[in-house]
Amino acid sequence: MKPLGPIPSGFAVIDGELAIGGCKASDLVAEAGSPLFVYDGALVTARVAALRAALPERLGLHYAMKANPFAPLLRHVAGLVDGFDIASGGELAMAEAAGVLAARISFAGPGKRDEDLEAAISRGVTLNLESAREAERALAIGERLGCAPRLAIRVNPDFDLKGSGMKMGGGAKPFGVDAAAVPALARRIIASGAEWRGLHIYAGSQTLDAAAIAEMQAATIALAARLAEESGAALPACNLGGGFGIPYFPGDLPLDLAAVGAALGEQFAALPDVLHGTAFCIELGRYLVGEAGVYLTRIVDRKESHGEVFLVTDGGLHHQLAASGNFGTVVRRNYPSAIATKFGLAPEEEASIVGCLCTPLDRLADKGGFPRAEEGDLVAVFCAGAYGASASPVHFLGHGPAAERLVNPRA
Amino acid sequence: MKPLGPIPSGFAVIDGELAIGGCKASDLVAEAGSPLFVYDGALVTARVAALRAALPERLGLHYAMKANPFAPLLRHVAGLVDGFDIASGGELAMAEAAGVLAARISFAGPGKRDEDLEAAISRGVTLNLESAREAERALAIGERLGCAPRLAIRVNPDFDLKGSGMKMGGGAKPFGVDAAAVPALARRIIASGAEWRGLHIYAGSQTLDAAAIAEMQAATIALAARLAEESGAALPACNLGGGFGIPYFPGDLPLDLAAVGAALGEQFAALPDVLHGTAFCIELGRYLVGEAGVYLTRIVDRKESHGEVFLVTDGGLHHQLAASGNFGTVVRRNYPSAIATKFGLAPEEEASIVGCLCTPLDRLADKGGFPRAEEGDLVAVFCAGAYGASASPVHFLGHGPAAERLVNPRA
Repeated sequence: MKPLGPIPSGFAVIDGELAIGGCKASDLVAEAGSPLFVYDGALVTARVAALRAALPERLGLHYAMKANPFAPLLRHVAGLVDGFDIASGGELAMAEAAGVLAARISFAGPGKRDEDLEAAISRGVTLNLESAREAERALAIGERLGCAPRLAIRVNPDFDLKGSGMKMGGGAKPFGVDAAAVPALARRIIASGAEWRGLHIYAGSQTLDAAAIAEMQAATIALAARLAEESGAALPACNLGGGFGIPYFPGDLPLDLAAVGAALGEQFAALPDVLHGTAFCIELGRYLVGEAGVYLTRIVDRKESHGEVFLVTDGGLHHQLAASGNFGTVVRRNYPSAIATKFGLAPEEEASIVGCLCTPLDRLADKGGFPRAEEGDLVAVFCAGAYGASASPVHFLGHGPAAERLVNPRA
Repeated sequence: MKPLGPIPSGFAVIDGELAIGGCKASDLVAEAGSPLFVYDGALVTARVAALRAALPERLGLHYAMKANPFAPLLRHVAGLVDGFDIASGGELAMAEAAGVLAARISFAGPGKRDEDLEAAISRGVTLNLESAREAERALAIGERLGCAPRLAIRVNPDFDLKGSGMKMGGGAKPFGVDAAAVPALARRIIASGAEWRGLHIYAGSQTLDAAAIAEMQAATIALAARLAEESGAALPACNLGGGFGIPYFPGDLPLDLAAVGAALGEQFAALPDVLHGTAFCIELGRYLVGEAGVYLTRIVDRKESHGEVFLVTDGGLHHQLAASGNFGTVVRRNYPSAIATKFGLAPEEEASIVGCLCTPLDRLADKGGFPRAEEGDLVAVFCAGAYGASASPVHFLGHGPAAERLVNPRA
């Protein structure tokens, strides 16, 4: 039997079933259909509150909406955070539709097209510039539009985030401007008359190691100070990136937020002069919404093959690619999962939960221990709030999208 | 410098540019936009002709439409092959919309829902049953609808396809019915009054080794004969599966079709009596359409980081997940790619081609040798005709879908 990832806190048992935000899994599916992503707004609200409590008051909190762009969730999050980070013109349109003010939006991402730059500049979105050429294109578009673009530089730092699932710094990268080239570009931007918005320094994502995050944030602040000195100009703002991970796999422990907050507080207490007026923020996606989401899918067939039990569901990797172990992971491990309609019961048998796609890649849980489940039972895959519905090949094999629901939206 | 996969044959240079089906890449993009998938119908037609010439006349040829469900391509292929294999109710609707007769469609896939079974049975589609329970559900639905379902059994064979990228047989699998349980289920189906359609035996996909395919086909025919004997009934039909691979990576050589055809011809010449009346077919997806497709994407930024050149495009893994090495591959290797607007020129520099997504996973070519390319140049990623547009997380980061075009459709 292979272990399953740890089920996040915040879920209850009602009538022997998994309840999400007080709603039974079977009731949610009866109303919205299967497969279904359910996001509990109350858990997102609580997560933001925990961050606010643990982190220095000075630190702004941004939502990296690539983690989950479901419109009702965007509206929910918009009322909780200080800004949105977007990665495309499409995300700009979605953020604005959710009521996010353009002045609170920053736009990072390599390969911004002229039409994306134009949309962002005309609305007053801050651009995190990925290259000197992108800066020139942005300045030219600003001139053509007759408005001063709000420009920050995304820095490719010379360090990375230790223990990170996705290293975004350290060495040659397609992201940002090499640190050594930043001061000259900053001077160029300031001299152009554009609105100088400072730096964006993103070194990695998804670590559970508070010390690694503290080390990265300290290095980021030191780098920002050095680049500001070399640029000869104060930094209006500095985005310290993200990196806050959530537990997905057996043995994973939650990030020690208090330790991260304490270390950052010490940094802020000893800021170099050049950063005294700087507005700092972090951008989090997965950490805000990942554990608040559950993917529910119905068992369509229970079968045995050569003595192994397979629970075949009506969902699969077309909705939850990462849970199948096929997106950015080298060794497949089990996400947290459970039989939602028999939640909290002791394991009775070893079973694999597979999707309905005709490929051996489509496995949601491999040889886990579960109570005995039958056709009609619902499976829950946890940690489905980030990089699920929008980060999966939804058209693959023509089964169609999953439904999505937000429970407990902000009033 | 890292090697690139071999560029498939069938493409030309016109005015120094890649031409697909006689159309220049820049003209195609000018008309349809970037990023763009282009499929050359003439190459699909030629591939089918090569198969017909090499393989025994008796062998039917089916298209596994999961490889590429683009509607104009489906219509093109429908006129060339003997049947379509589908994997969902959604694919059934798309196949029928492309003019494929239901009697020529077979439906495999674990996790068929009752509504999928009902749609298939009511139209006369052959079901490749994945379990005894699915058989009972199909029989009950047939009874309720008052029509005899057309039922075949998908067999989980005790062997797999050597050298296959995706093993679909050998040991415990979620696919099909274990061989030992097939005869009893076949007798149950025949006794029920359903229309008995025989067996579907799919042992693996994507091998370039003709001997491995010949061995698999021989084992499949022997298994089919044994199961037919044990079932006490002749097999009306037998689907021998697929497995025909295409070259993606450096050093890959095309499959020796003549060798496959000769070996299968010997098998057919020595068929056991119980299979004399059996209609055999194979189902191919990738092999029919994979090399006929090219993904075109425009370079938006050319940048250097720590001495490495990055060509940042307006496309990426949201359209071509497999090319980024993140779908079913353990070790990332380069797909064939080129600068489409400088096609056929000698390499001048080492560059990595990356997508516009804000993740280090989004790399279309890693440290390949290319002629020097600038902003505005087009990149071509080859072998994009199968498992591209429909098998990628198109909504990820909100950049939107790629355009798709079929050139040289059948008159």
